[in-house]
Amino acid sequence: VSTIQFSQIVVPDGMIELGIGQPDRSTFPIAAVRAAAAAAFDVHGEYLQYGAEYGDGHHRLALADFLTRTYGFRVDPELLYSTNGNSQAIDQISGIFAKPGDTIIVEDPTYFIARQIFADRGLQVVDAQMDSDGIDIDALGAQLAALRSAGTPARFIYTIPTFHNPTGRTLPVGRRQQLVELAAQYECLIVADEVYHLLHTGESRSVPPPMSAWVDSGYVLSLGTFSKIFSPGLRLGWVHAASPLLEQLVGSGLIVSAGGLNPVVSTLMTPMLHDGTVEDNITSLRREYANRIDVMHEALHQYVGDLMTWTKPTGGYFFWLTLPPGVDGLHLRRVAEQHGVGLRHGALFRVKALAGPDAVRLSFAHYQAADLIEGCRRLGSALGEAIHL
Amino acid sequence: VSTIQFSQIVVPDGMIELGIGQPDRSTFPIAAVRAAAAAAFDVHGEYLQYGAEYGDGHHRLALADFLTRTYGFRVDPELLYSTNGNSQAIDQISGIFAKPGDTIIVEDPTYFIARQIFADRGLQVVDAQMDSDGIDIDALGAQLAALRSAGTPARFIYTIPTFHNPTGRTLPVGRRQQLVELAAQYECLIVADEVYHLLHTGESRSVPPPMSAWVDSGYVLSLGTFSKIFSPGLRLGWVHAASPLLEQLVGSGLIVSAGGLNPVVSTLMTPMLHDGTVEDNITSLRREYANRIDVMHEALHQYVGDLMTWTKPTGGYFFWLTLPPGVDGLHLRRVAEQHGVGLRHGALFRVKALAGPDAVRLSFAHYQAADLIEGCRRLGSALGEAIHL
Repeated sequence: VSTIQFSQIVVPDGMIELGIGQPDRSTFPIAAVRAAAAAAFDVHGEYLQYGAEYGDGHHRLALADFLTRTYGFRVDPELLYSTNGNSQAIDQISGIFAKPGDTIIVEDPTYFIARQIFADRGLQVVDAQMDSDGIDIDALGAQLAALRSAGTPARFIYTIPTFHNPTGRTLPVGRRQQLVELAAQYECLIVADEVYHLLHTGESRSVPPPMSAWVDSGYVLSLGTFSKIFSPGLRLGWVHAASPLLEQLVGSGLIVSAGGLNPVVSTLMTPMLHDGTVEDNITSLRREYANRIDVMHEALHQYVGDLMTWTKPTGGYFFWLTLPPGVDGLHLRRVAEQHGVGLRHGALFRVKALAGPDAVRLSFAHYQAADLIEGCRRLGSALGEAIHL
Repeated sequence: VSTIQFSQIVVPDGMIELGIGQPDRSTFPIAAVRAAAAAAFDVHGEYLQYGAEYGDGHHRLALADFLTRTYGFRVDPELLYSTNGNSQAIDQISGIFAKPGDTIIVEDPTYFIARQIFADRGLQVVDAQMDSDGIDIDALGAQLAALRSAGTPARFIYTIPTFHNPTGRTLPVGRRQQLVELAAQYECLIVADEVYHLLHTGESRSVPPPMSAWVDSGYVLSLGTFSKIFSPGLRLGWVHAASPLLEQLVGSGLIVSAGGLNPVVSTLMTPMLHDGTVEDNITSLRREYANRIDVMHEALHQYVGDLMTWTKPTGGYFFWLTLPPGVDGLHLRRVAEQHGVGLRHGALFRVKALAGPDAVRLSFAHYQAADLIEGCRRLGSALGEAIHL
């Protein structure tokens, strides 16, 4: 098999892969990128030199303005560090703020490839319980205490606080505050993957503030990215955190050697942060995804509504559906593939099997309405077959 | 002090910083980049999606053609993996092919920030002896044997085989062959940082083949980058290695999560690989650096020729100058700063102090002729003062 490919995922013809947690190309602001390139790649060529280690200064100033407008509180440009996207940030943080063999805490379930990054870094992962509002704070407190007593204190908690992957759940503001208090009490960092935070489908005041609002505590690293609000191929994101934390990231050999991680793309994005292109794109994505959620919610009701249960998402990328008792998610995935539809089975996102019914994750980000409906129809057929097998 | 900066290094007004191992902006093909952006960022926007994990297929095909033409032997596109530049490649390789506490071997002296990357990864570094032809192969064989006997086998040897940083030395072809034989005998990888390989000032046949020529052994990872042959802000490079080695890099959580590391810049560079822009730029750099080497060699003769000794470089970025007995490089660096000229002192590149005379590294890459001459004049004054102090 040739390794010469042109994108990360290749879906076989005819398949509707509702498992893919990636946007579809129809949402990319291609014309804006072309126009921005002509303007941003100026005759001075500053972006072709080794870049500043925190990231390009022009870019960080524009990013801080954008976040200040969007989050509704002041974001200090000095507290931003430009990354190669959240995957790179998670990997680097795992190397700087923990040592191999150290313990960290993740939500159960969580983003499955983050688990692989932590394993690559040799970290011991402890799963935190969730309920319909995200992390169970009381249980977390007990875990932190037990880990400290055992001499294996948790170095950080990796969380996706808003429109969580895979469950779509959002941690309420009260729990966010409690999470930060626990972090301070146990001197444990919070690594908040805020990748979906801006993709809400309702009013922004219905969404709690991002964990970014608590960076002054000194315990929060808020990870943001252009991947889901603009385009993932940019490989550009940021960490918002207190200076002593950023200094450790920026002082690493990787950054001292390389300089800034992505000067060219930072330069490309700066005018689009200034002129409202990024905000307009987010507005357009919110409208598009709100429509897709409605369509998929309706189609799921029609085709699997008597067998699966779910909460209608209010943002993010995912539906998380509880299966009927006795139906295994991985088994359903295999049957569904034969019916021409893909999904991600629940066990992928967790280490230990669930006691209760299994679940599956479907994404509405990679396909438009007609395919979402057809995918749900096929899922209904697959589920019928899986139950009867 | 504000962290808002616009490039990695800011040199105080009036200072000539011959310590900096970075190109100067006058060599950047700015107009070509602007033209390529207009063509490469097409209306399809494929480069905005999560990219293929090995790197963009179009880019790898174009890169393989370029390397085949330039190296003079066939480079298989299937054996190329696109990186965020050599620093990222060194860091990732250090995590995949060694575990914290494992032993690796580096040249003594070597690129000082690579040492920091290895330390960040928790690796134990053993120094290999060099002579005027690079690594001493007999001594290396004895080290490999001793490390294996001690139960701490070397996982890899990090080498800069051509126009070595900081010494400028080049490993002859016979030693390259012996190095690969040792690697096979001791099952120890060779991580060849070939960053300066293409920057020779004479005929290409006077330069030994890159370590890339030995990837079929299965023990060589050849690291290449556009940083020194085009522009460092691109953060784009490649690893050329056998498939089983690439599979380990590409199968890491970081890459599975992120997809290709730099789809946008890969796409930008592809037309410039096809149309000869990259090769023309290398030709132009060779001519420019050959001239600068002549100028600096002459100026050094004039200002420090009776006190320092050196071999005139035939490529790369650096002069490596042996100091008069009793003069300490760090001391000279401090005196030189007061005379308005920068340098890198020898101890920076090694762990243990030298028995014999100290040395310093000067780069001719960051300044044009007039500044190089003035910098050498100031160095002469500083050296006179350092000797008399």
